[in-house]
Amino acid sequence: QVEKFGAACKRAGAELKALEVNLIDRIWADQPDRPQNEVVVQPLQFAGRSSEVKLAAICEDLADKGADAAVLTLPDSVAWAFNIRGSDIAHTPVTLCFAIIHREGPAELFVAPERLSEDSAAALKGLVVTKPAAAFGVALEELGSSGCSVILDQNTAPEKVRALLIDSGAKVLAGRDPCVLPKARKTTGELNGARAAHLRDGVAMVKFLAWFDAAIANGEAVDEITAARMLEGFRSESGVLKDISFDSISAAAGHAAIPHYRVTTASNRQIGSDEIYLIDSGGQYQDGTTDITRTVIAGQPSAEMRDRFTRVLKGMINLSRARFPSGTTGGNLDVLARQALWDAGLDFDHGTGHGVGSYLSVHEGPARFSKTDATRLEPGMILSNEPGFYKPGAFGIRIENLVIVREAESIEGGERAMMWLETLTLCPIDRRLIDLHMMDQDERDWLNAYHAQVLDALSPRLDDREAAWLTQATLAL
Amino acid sequence: QVEKFGAACKRAGAELKALEVNLIDRIWADQPDRPQNEVVVQPLQFAGRSSEVKLAAICEDLADKGADAAVLTLPDSVAWAFNIRGSDIAHTPVTLCFAIIHREGPAELFVAPERLSEDSAAALKGLVVTKPAAAFGVALEELGSSGCSVILDQNTAPEKVRALLIDSGAKVLAGRDPCVLPKARKTTGELNGARAAHLRDGVAMVKFLAWFDAAIANGEAVDEITAARMLEGFRSESGVLKDISFDSISAAAGHAAIPHYRVTTASNRQIGSDEIYLIDSGGQYQDGTTDITRTVIAGQPSAEMRDRFTRVLKGMINLSRARFPSGTTGGNLDVLARQALWDAGLDFDHGTGHGVGSYLSVHEGPARFSKTDATRLEPGMILSNEPGFYKPGAFGIRIENLVIVREAESIEGGERAMMWLETLTLCPIDRRLIDLHMMDQDERDWLNAYHAQVLDALSPRLDDREAAWLTQATLAL
Repeated sequence: QVEKFGAACKRAGAELKALEVNLIDRIWADQPDRPQNEVVVQPLQFAGRSSEVKLAAICEDLADKGADAAVLTLPDSVAWAFNIRGSDIAHTPVTLCFAIIHREGPAELFVAPERLSEDSAAALKGLVVTKPAAAFGVALEELGSSGCSVILDQNTAPEKVRALLIDSGAKVLAGRDPCVLPKARKTTGELNGARAAHLRDGVAMVKFLAWFDAAIANGEAVDEITAARMLEGFRSESGVLKDISFDSISAAAGHAAIPHYRVTTASNRQIGSDEIYLIDSGGQYQDGTTDITRTVIAGQPSAEMRDRFTRVLKGMINLSRARFPSGTTGGNLDVLARQALWDAGLDFDHGTGHGVGSYLSVHEGPARFSKTDATRLEPGMILSNEPGFYKPGAFGIRIENLVIVREAESIEGGERAMMWLETLTLCPIDRRLIDLHMMDQDERDWLNAYHAQVLDALSPRLDDREAAWLTQATLAL
Repeated sequence: QVEKFGAACKRAGAELKALEVNLIDRIWADQPDRPQNEVVVQPLQFAGRSSEVKLAAICEDLADKGADAAVLTLPDSVAWAFNIRGSDIAHTPVTLCFAIIHREGPAELFVAPERLSEDSAAALKGLVVTKPAAAFGVALEELGSSGCSVILDQNTAPEKVRALLIDSGAKVLAGRDPCVLPKARKTTGELNGARAAHLRDGVAMVKFLAWFDAAIANGEAVDEITAARMLEGFRSESGVLKDISFDSISAAAGHAAIPHYRVTTASNRQIGSDEIYLIDSGGQYQDGTTDITRTVIAGQPSAEMRDRFTRVLKGMINLSRARFPSGTTGGNLDVLARQALWDAGLDFDHGTGHGVGSYLSVHEGPARFSKTDATRLEPGMILSNEPGFYKPGAFGIRIENLVIVREAESIEGGERAMMWLETLTLCPIDRRLIDLHMMDQDERDWLNAYHAQVLDALSPRLDDREAAWLTQATLAL
């Protein structure tokens, strides 16, 4: 990447120059201290695979590629590889640190030893040599001076790391961070955790949506900040919420047309009569990360809103229903989520979905549902399925479920192994915004089955008023 | 490509070595003479754009890329660039020759001047310097000795050409043959020609299918070779058929399960009762190249045949019906042609479609409908749409129409520019093989409208018996 960018600069008559100091550090006077939060263990029950097993697989990978070591610079790769978690970044439970995995000998983790919890120190003992962050540069130079071949993901690694390796004599092999693909293929433990997290998260969402409908019906003033806080409160009620997984997008009317809107006290507005309200949010639980968007109507929708909502929903459903063979990419399936919009001369300008971590980053690679994605979908990957439609200044619609890529059971007459997408997210989709005439029987059947599943799973976990609301919200169409 | 292959050989312990002589030439004793057929003009009426204009655009392209020249090694690129055609290869109207396009000064065409027809000699005069084939090597070395930067498509150029350029000091720039993309974007003249060619070709196909049905109904013995010859005869009846566009795939029952089956006197078999017959064929007309596959039943189809045929047809229709924005690739749309098969655990192991030339190669790049294609679809491209299903030893199904990528007229409420696929091929699809219950209303509507269009276009060009057959074959479902 640096090389490409450097070449582009050169063509434009400029020169890309590495600096020893970060210029922003120089002018950022009131910079907070570097976070030094505790490093904790991600229990095997949730990780589903021990760090020993993960590291052994990576070392095999290194051997295949003729590499002596891999340098990890992505905090979520480090967290995954060693089954550790942290709290150095808001909403993403990672520790800001680097690591080196050696084909022979223990891995090195560059984090001050005193930051390790008792459990994590015990878990890492024998597996990893822990060194202060400041020792990372020396370790890179040692890789170079011993003539090592090193895998470094040049799409994500800091240029400084590459330069230190090259300058000290290391052979830097092009290649992806070796954790990225295995991290995306969730273990059975992670998938079971994700299911439990989504059940819990669905309860919070339904409590929120039931509250929202009642508040609107009672003529209460509901604004974007209040709504987001209410939802966070319902998530906290579970008692096991570690954090939200990103700043909630709580957006009424025209604000919902801004896909990454973030409400502030200045922008905050009430949800008005007959306006659309969009809430995109998620939770970090130790057993899984959630990410869900629902779009609801406060009053009566216009015909245009229903048309657009139904087209977005058809896309979400048709991607959810897909069966596809091995080798299929997100770039192949993306059209399924857009076709109903394209048919009407409409589209949306973001990807259809992204990978989601396991109690890690809510956005993770390598697979996506997007026009340009060429990563093969593999069993165990968790992705979002979130088509949308945005009418600037007026309203925005997005419907988002998370799905797991799974191997399908063979069906009668079937000849090929197929995959399917198991929907994780459990929360009703606003029936008032659906134009039923636009949906074909297969789409209705999917929605009715989904709503039946939501009702069945969540009802026992709700109070009577909420359960009554959910029964109404999931009536068959 | 050579470099990649060479690197792979090296890893495997082998060395890739260029030779001065072709080893096959050494052992091929009864080798025919190199074809020396006439070079003729492709009239402007059909080409739609003069060679002057094409060459000027390529020279602009060269200037953009900082290149002094482009070496053309693909016969269809040379034919397209200079609006010439030949007959050195069966079924593809090209001359086997090379050319060099210079940013400054006239292009060079390496073909014996005496091979030029009077018209083509006149047309090329002033535009091109024609030199004997043997002068090509010297011309490449001159590019080198004058230090030129040369565009050479290393995916398709002979290694010898690259070596001559490099060894003589030329700077070889990586890049695609500069004719490939503009050649794929057909001119209005080429598109109108394609429509005329398909009308003519549809008449031949309907005469053939009507004859076939009557012969089967009369209990006549129809074999694969006879059928292919009959169809070629109907194509010839037009009086303007230059050649067939490839060896017809005329395949009964289990033979139809071999996608590239070619009948021989040894393999030839009769089309038996209740068997499927597949015919994939095309014509070379001066105004366009055709390629069509139809699958028909000789008697009564089984339930399995109808199920599979209907799934293939749904795929063909759903790709035909697609509307999509700029930037969409064949890799994005391919799923539309496969989804009905995937739903049943089925698939087919070839691309869904390929580019088609204008009185040129029936297979041309760069765009395709296939899982891995990343070429943007652009207005004017002609591609085939030909999903299939193959049951080895039993039967095969393929339904193929050619389509043009076109800019769509905007529709009410539409916000984005969209493209659509205009179907060129005019020939009924066997209604006896369709299970109507499996088709949704949009699919039926498409098929009925298509059949109405076929009837309307072809009826006036048929005799009464054939017109009656077509009326029956295109009845609304």
